[in-house]
Amino acid sequence: MALKGNACIAQSGGPTIVINASMVGAIEAARDIPEIEGFYGALNGLKGLLNEELTELFREDPAVVSALKLCPSAAIGTARLKPKKPELLRTMEVFKAHNIRYFFYNGGNDTQLACHLISELAKTSDWEMQVVGIPKTIDNDLEVTDHCPGYGSASRYAAAAVQFAGKDSEAFGNPHVIEIMGRNVGWLTAAAWAGKRHEIDPPHLVYLPEKLVTRAQFLEDAHAAFKKHKFLVIAVSEGFAFEGEDKATTSDKVDSFGHARLGGVGSALSDLLEEEKVSSRSRSDKLGNLQRCFGWATSKVDLDEAYEVGRQAVLKAARGETDIMITIDRKSDEPYVAEIGDTALMSVADKEKRVPVEWINEAGNGMTEDFMRYIRPLVSGAAATVGDDLPQWPRLTKFMVDKKLAPYAPVK
Amino acid sequence: MALKGNACIAQSGGPTIVINASMVGAIEAARDIPEIEGFYGALNGLKGLLNEELTELFREDPAVVSALKLCPSAAIGTARLKPKKPELLRTMEVFKAHNIRYFFYNGGNDTQLACHLISELAKTSDWEMQVVGIPKTIDNDLEVTDHCPGYGSASRYAAAAVQFAGKDSEAFGNPHVIEIMGRNVGWLTAAAWAGKRHEIDPPHLVYLPEKLVTRAQFLEDAHAAFKKHKFLVIAVSEGFAFEGEDKATTSDKVDSFGHARLGGVGSALSDLLEEEKVSSRSRSDKLGNLQRCFGWATSKVDLDEAYEVGRQAVLKAARGETDIMITIDRKSDEPYVAEIGDTALMSVADKEKRVPVEWINEAGNGMTEDFMRYIRPLVSGAAATVGDDLPQWPRLTKFMVDKKLAPYAPVK
Repeated sequence: MALKGNACIAQSGGPTIVINASMVGAIEAARDIPEIEGFYGALNGLKGLLNEELTELFREDPAVVSALKLCPSAAIGTARLKPKKPELLRTMEVFKAHNIRYFFYNGGNDTQLACHLISELAKTSDWEMQVVGIPKTIDNDLEVTDHCPGYGSASRYAAAAVQFAGKDSEAFGNPHVIEIMGRNVGWLTAAAWAGKRHEIDPPHLVYLPEKLVTRAQFLEDAHAAFKKHKFLVIAVSEGFAFEGEDKATTSDKVDSFGHARLGGVGSALSDLLEEEKVSSRSRSDKLGNLQRCFGWATSKVDLDEAYEVGRQAVLKAARGETDIMITIDRKSDEPYVAEIGDTALMSVADKEKRVPVEWINEAGNGMTEDFMRYIRPLVSGAAATVGDDLPQWPRLTKFMVDKKLAPYAPVK
Repeated sequence: MALKGNACIAQSGGPTIVINASMVGAIEAARDIPEIEGFYGALNGLKGLLNEELTELFREDPAVVSALKLCPSAAIGTARLKPKKPELLRTMEVFKAHNIRYFFYNGGNDTQLACHLISELAKTSDWEMQVVGIPKTIDNDLEVTDHCPGYGSASRYAAAAVQFAGKDSEAFGNPHVIEIMGRNVGWLTAAAWAGKRHEIDPPHLVYLPEKLVTRAQFLEDAHAAFKKHKFLVIAVSEGFAFEGEDKATTSDKVDSFGHARLGGVGSALSDLLEEEKVSSRSRSDKLGNLQRCFGWATSKVDLDEAYEVGRQAVLKAARGETDIMITIDRKSDEPYVAEIGDTALMSVADKEKRVPVEWINEAGNGMTEDFMRYIRPLVSGAAATVGDDLPQWPRLTKFMVDKKLAPYAPVK
């Protein structure tokens, strides 16, 4: 029934903490399928495929392969490459030359589009093959699937980082703006809300591209929250801009997918808080590339699911399915139950799922309980009650001593 | 023997992951000393002391106090304030008004200077008191003490972050410059070296303010390392500048101690790698404020020592010692053994300990084994063999498949 020949996997786009788990799941599943004779890794994604830079993954020590499950980032390398027609044709040549009958492409929406185009080409050529997309993106913007492998661990990092940074801000009593990745969507920034238990906990405000606010509204929010809590933590998506204004970016460079390199809105907002005298001193941090590789933030659910989508990609391909992407279909929030499904590549290719506006509060500066139900299972560590092992500490009551002196008047 | 009255503690300067542990150590020791009647926390450091914003720490739930040991950053708030004469005089008024006979000041070299000045004032006034400095700084630049509480955990974060970020760089095959805190000293940047096991492991190059290199040398180093490893991770201290050139900074602002706000050298070096065509694409990250608050990076040795220096400050003060700072005196690297000692405040006040140049390699771009012996015990997590639980993973062997086609010539 299954095609006899070799399989090939490629990792694409920005890595995640768990992308290797998907590859390990695929390799380990393929070992039990006699029709899959060799399992090749294309080095640096499509670049390696075009240049026949293929490595034999079945020949690797199984213990090493298994250990890679816990290693963040793309172990066979990745690339950002949007293939045009000649490149797509070349992939077919390589598939034929190396008797590759199975192609697994692990990435986001650009990648799933390329995956679909390859699948189409295979269908119309004389080379029968199974082409299956494996989802991956910290941006969490793939359609159909409930969420994307990689998002949970990045969310866990963002949520924890905001709790930790919040302690630092509280110690100084300063505003602190934290810029979080996500391109045009606010999923990862929203995840910063997952560590918040009480109103005083950070983040006090979050701003997503899905619901813009005006500059005046932002300043009003910031003033009020800072006055109330005596410190202020704002999480902002790199893709956020004030309503009616241009996106802040520190760079005019573009990446190889042609997207603008974002970044800068966090420090711009922080500067604004100083300029508009919300506080004489404000700081900002960009969570930066660590969001997608900080392995100590690995989410157990994310890790297990990443492995499983890789495994299922191989099992489904071996059953003759093609032109699909594996999906995660949530059945229940609590207890968290999800099943692995699939969808036509065209239903996800080059599309972008945004945070539902109804999961953002009225004021456009916080998340609702619906979102919290969604995110909680995704951010849990290895040994935790679901969603409950993000950093938290008690606060001192602060029993104030009665003052005995005249107020201190600093000498000028 | 011991003075009868109240004690007061203040946290000062940039917080650390373990600064609260020192306060908890002090409070818990003070509970057993009958002469210490009340234990006050000055809110936001010297600011709180000047304004009589004192909180009664003995009245807090002991379980909450104990839990704060694991909470990063300054739980009673911190400030950067360099007191002048009128402010020093005011502290004496407050001490007298509240019958404060013990003052514990937890901070870096600016703080220890203030601590000494307060001690001097007490000696020459009619108010007998014991003044003891508790060391703290992620910069690790206090003299006399082998190292400073806070440095180990910040080092553990920096070392782990560089390993994680290195995986991301390796996946793309890009240069990646990581900017690390430390002001004028390179201790924390040097700590990035602690996670390196093999030559291919990041960081490939580190640059510290203690040993400057020229722009030409930097580019030569970067070219060679990138060529050899096909990726490149550079850790650079925020206080580094090319030999004979000005310090890069993105800001002309100064903090309340009057120090320039540093930052920007990482992105400047990354841009340089693109401009000078070491690679068409290079990235940079600033580890930022998370270096001093990312609790998941807590070092066990650091945590225990931070607690102990707080505890010993109280015990020594109760024995009548004053005008001293607590020190950590290393007795052995492996097994790691250290004892708690003390030193005159004037031996550390306003001084700066730099990384010994002989711990930096000849080329000025890496650390020696002497430094590794120093740092290893300080970066270990809770359940580890000393220094050995920083992230590491095996690498794939990469058995390459023979090519079968003519080289791919991209269509223009």
